[in-house]
Amino acid sequence: MIISVAAHSEEPSREIAEKARSFVRKVSPCNPTLLLGGYWGLMKTVVDEAIKQGLTVVLILPIERENIDLPAQVIPIRSGCEFRCRSVILVRSGDVLVSLGGGVGTEIEIMLAYAMGKPIYAITETGLSTDHFARAFPEYIDDRRVVKIRYFNDPGEVAEEICRGNMKSVETRFG
Amino acid sequence: MIISVAAHSEEPSREIAEKARSFVRKVSPCNPTLLLGGYWGLMKTVVDEAIKQGLTVVLILPIERENIDLPAQVIPIRSGCEFRCRSVILVRSGDVLVSLGGGVGTEIEIMLAYAMGKPIYAITETGLSTDHFARAFPEYIDDRRVVKIRYFNDPGEVAEEICRGNMKSVETRFG
Amino acid sequence: MIISVAAHSEEPSREIAEKARSFVRKVSPCNPTLLLGGYWGLMKTVVDEAIKQGLTVVLILPIERENIDLPAQVIPIRSGCEFRCRSVILVRSGDVLVSLGGGVGTEIEIMLAYAMGKPIYAITETGLSTDHFARAFPEYIDDRRVVKIRYFNDPGEVAEEICRGNMKSVETRFG
Amino acid sequence: MIISVAAHSEEPSREIAEKARSFVRKVSPCNPTLLLGGYWGLMKTVVDEAIKQGLTVVLILPIERENIDLPAQVIPIRSGCEFRCRSVILVRSGDVLVSLGGGVGTEIEIMLAYAMGKPIYAITETGLSTDHFARAFPEYIDDRRVVKIRYFNDPGEVAEEICRGNMKSVETRFG
Repeated sequence: MIISVAAHSEEPSREIAEKARSFVRKVSPCNPTLLLGGYWGLMKTVVDEAIKQGLTVVLILPIERENIDLPAQVIPIRSGCEFRCRSVILVRSGDVLVSLGGGVGTEIEIMLAYAMGKPIYAITETGLSTDHFARAFPEYIDDRRVVKIRYFNDPGEVAEEICRGNMKSVETRFG
Repeated sequence: MIISVAAHSEEPSREIAEKARSFVRKVSPCNPTLLLGGYWGLMKTVVDEAIKQGLTVVLILPIERENIDLPAQVIPIRSGCEFRCRSVILVRSGDVLVSLGGGVGTEIEIMLAYAMGKPIYAITETGLSTDHFARAFPEYIDDRRVVKIRYFNDPGEVAEEICRGNMKSVETRFG
Repeated sequence: MIISVAAHSEEPSREIAEKARSFVRKVSPCNPTLLLGGYWGLMKTVVDEAIKQGLTVVLILPIERENIDLPAQVIPIRSGCEFRCRSVILVRSGDVLVSLGGGVGTEIEIMLAYAMGKPIYAITETGLSTDHFARAFPEYIDDRRVVKIRYFNDPGEVAEEICRGNMKSVETRFG
Repeated sequence: MIISVAAHSEEPSREIAEKARSFVRKVSPCNPTLLLGGYWGLMKTVVDEAIKQGLTVVLILPIERENIDLPAQVIPIRSGCEFRCRSVILVRSGDVLVSLGGGVGTEIEIMLAYAMGKPIYAITETGLSTDHFARAFPEYIDDRRVVKIRYFNDPGEVAEEICRGNMKSVETRFG
């Protein structure tokens, strides 16, 4: 299973960093591959914990930051394209999207996943802009009702749901 | 000036079609080039009116529908990539983004424009999902406060603002 | 008709610049839209002449040079992706590819056109690396024999052939 | 170390399949990650052998064939873009490119690697179109002389050279 992880590109608070690490620890037993869009901000927190847990980590890097230093264990894919374009590849490649909280970049990734019909799990009460997004779109993002976003305060519950493995993508054909 | 136009990929109501045509007519005097992402749904309405007004129209086509029949006057660019990836090129290429109303695809284009620091003008009271988006994000999309989205009920006012030409992009470096 | 033009990214000699301008002048009567990948080197020569002739010019810009100064008449599309990726969009969007001579970038564009089944017209005796390419691949690029590259010393003949308009793309499905 | 592998998209002969498997076996001791562009033709031969050797394999899939069945051990990245565009990502992401022989797709990948300044190792005497390419470009692809392509008949020698690990990319800035 491949999990695309949307996470803030800026330094996380201690609380949200801990929530993110907790998600990684709790999802580790079902041994997913994690896809992330970089190695900075909250994404770095996730990657570091995933390495500690021995998970396979693939980074889809935007051209703006494709030459950053990386831990030897991660597999960098250089998208050759800009921040939002790399998010398209990131989201499209996952079986599911998990949002750990962030700003507009993370919100875009949630919307991309919705438009592509991917199952979406989003952590709330992060203190980040995605909390507002969650209130704005408690279920669906548009009137097509493609997939219902599932919000959780507890990252352990997201891990549990994902490891149970009974979520499915919906085929979409609009755009 | 290049205006990226975000508009619904599905058949518009008579009212919203008229609002869209009105925008095109009123913006024509300053002779912008219009960029759109296809020739179906509300996008088709806009393209047809733009041709009638003699405007240059460029379409950034997604690979899923790159072979549709087109009027001879438009210039098709085949992005070679999927729906959302073509939206990245569409938004990035404009000096400004105008949303005429739509679903998640249009909402993604607004968010892309915000993340790229482009001026955004959005028509409200369309009866489409973007009306809800407008209520959810009355000003900014995240706490970076990159650009303030400007909402209008009257498409003529948007045209006027754009023709006045004093909007500016903000450089962004996050993602 | 849309002509994708592959041309050197470096300063041309007087001879090759003249050959390129001659092609533009002679193809002008059938009023094609020209697509190019930038506004530097031999590409700039072509764009300047095309503007003089009143042709519509669209540039597919790579992210590395998306902010260069451009004449007001051209329509810039910001691909958001790197040099070679923008070449894919450039070639895919044309009805035909014309090579006016260049280095590896131009050679890649010829190969992309071949792989996509586009008609290819290439100017030889330019003094550039594509002269060697022409000798290496006098007809086909691989044993699939997708499209036969047509080589010309005289740019006027290429213009004539193109304006006659009886070339067709071949559908390809490999890769 | 990440090795981008360019290989024919069509069924290989027994000889070339054996050469490809031999390369994989001999490069395994230095434990590279292999990147390929699909799971068909000669690429499938390489992937199957790499799995047998326990190597990590990442596939950069073109949108035309992103839904093919894959072995559980490989990590599929859905580029969301067409055949040649996925080749750009494939080549850009590798520390080095190895060509095991093929047609125009493989030749394009060699040219992309050259344009990006990547070290290139190419197997000759494959009976495929790349043999002709090797004769056409025995050293450099254009007069910039970016990187010297290194040709080998023996796949074991390529593996040895790569495992020795003293090849370096050259930074390029043209296009």
